Amino acid sequence: MKTLIIISHPDIAGSHSQQFLLEGITRQKNITVHHLETLYPDGKINIEEERLLVEQHQRIIFQFPLYWYSSPAMLKHWQDEVLEEDLFDRWKGKDFGLVVLAGIHEREFRAGGRERVTMDELMRPFQTVANKFGWHYLPVLSIHQFNYQTEEERKALLVRYQQLLTLPNESLNERTDWFVRHLRKLSEEKTDSVQKQRLAHLVDLLLANQEEIEDLKTTLDELD
Amino acid sequence: MKTLIIISHPDIAGSHSQQFLLEGITRQKNITVHHLETLYPDGKINIEEERLLVEQHQRIIFQFPLYWYSSPAMLKHWQDEVLEEDLFDRWKGKDFGLVVLAGIHEREFRAGGRERVTMDELMRPFQTVANKFGWHYLPVLSIHQFNYQTEEERKALLVRYQQLLTLPNESLNERTDWFVRHLRKLSEEKTDSVQKQRLAHLVDLLLANQEEIEDLKTTLDELD
Repeated sequence: MKTLIIISHPDIAGSHSQQFLLEGITRQKNITVHHLETLYPDGKINIEEERLLVEQHQRIIFQFPLYWYSSPAMLKHWQDEVLEEDLFDRWKGKDFGLVVLAGIHEREFRAGGRERVTMDELMRPFQTVANKFGWHYLPVLSIHQFNYQTEEERKALLVRYQQLLTLPNESLNERTDWFVRHLRKLSEEKTDSVQKQRLAHLVDLLLANQEEIEDLKTTLDELD
Repeated sequence: MKTLIIISHPDIAGSHSQQFLLEGITRQKNITVHHLETLYPDGKINIEEERLLVEQHQRIIFQFPLYWYSSPAMLKHWQDEVLEEDLFDRWKGKDFGLVVLAGIHEREFRAGGRERVTMDELMRPFQTVANKFGWHYLPVLSIHQFNYQTEEERKALLVRYQQLLTLPNESLNERTDWFVRHLRKLSEEKTDSVQKQRLAHLVDLLLANQEEIEDLKTTLDELD
């Protein structure tokens, strides 16, 4: 599966959070990073190239800082220029996700919080675009006050980010394979033998579960 | 009360609905019409002038066609450039309204409709901006499939538009005065004597009600 990350940020080089996320996914050949302000400093979008790019990817991610409770204007401009009703049929069935970076604490985005609305509510226009195109809308990854996050929180964030970008959302088998692959990679990076053992154990568990589920499926098929 | 209508539309001269609305409010000295694409064809907004304009008006209206379930990018650009946290205190207490023109039928904007969401939900980012600034958020005036509307529907639309632009939302007295003023103006324009009589009767009723409410208030004050 190929993933396209469309980023809108007026100063991506100066953004710690954006750089942190991008460093976490370097050298992954199935991920294309596409920063609009770098490509189009004058705001003139190459519509045909953008459409080709969307066509070549199965999962489309919009990544942006929250500006006045939505994306920066540049990403809206991209939508206004690139999206078109004629493409509904051709583009249906894609996955669509949002990575939203906010300077305000998560607890404010709820009834009774200072912002009064949830991030899911604020992102409704994007969800409705996904609905219109027949895209599978992935849960929003909203990152709050990145600069105050601990090392541990940031590690956990990278895992969630990686999942949003590449974890298949369809079959359980594919999802298990994804986890096995990532746990094995993690195990290779570790030097501590206890940690290595724990990760190997996790992989064994996942594979055993996968086998068990396969057996159950065969049984169900025979009952059918 | 002075009202500022900030319009974003890439081709306002070619839009029947926009022209219809604007023709309905010509020569009203307390309404300022401000079309962004005419003023800033290159997208470079004069931030200081825009802030001054907002400052000079009590009611701010955003008027735009629905593009991908939000405003055109230009209006978002205006927000990104002009709005600023430092202005929260200075600008608080304004009225804020939206006039949204949509090509899709109203019945699709609800649970179970094709769009699945209501217009109120889609406009949540604007409502949250209003909340942040301490503005009074007026009910959204959403206009659906203007080109299919009958003459009668369009007349009713102009009344709702005029109310959104100029009807005070605070005191009942001010609201009554507004209606009396508008009914009298309407009566002057009519030639049919039956219609004139009916309108005069309505004005009498409103004024009588107003007096009665005043009396009740006095009674309440005496009981206090």
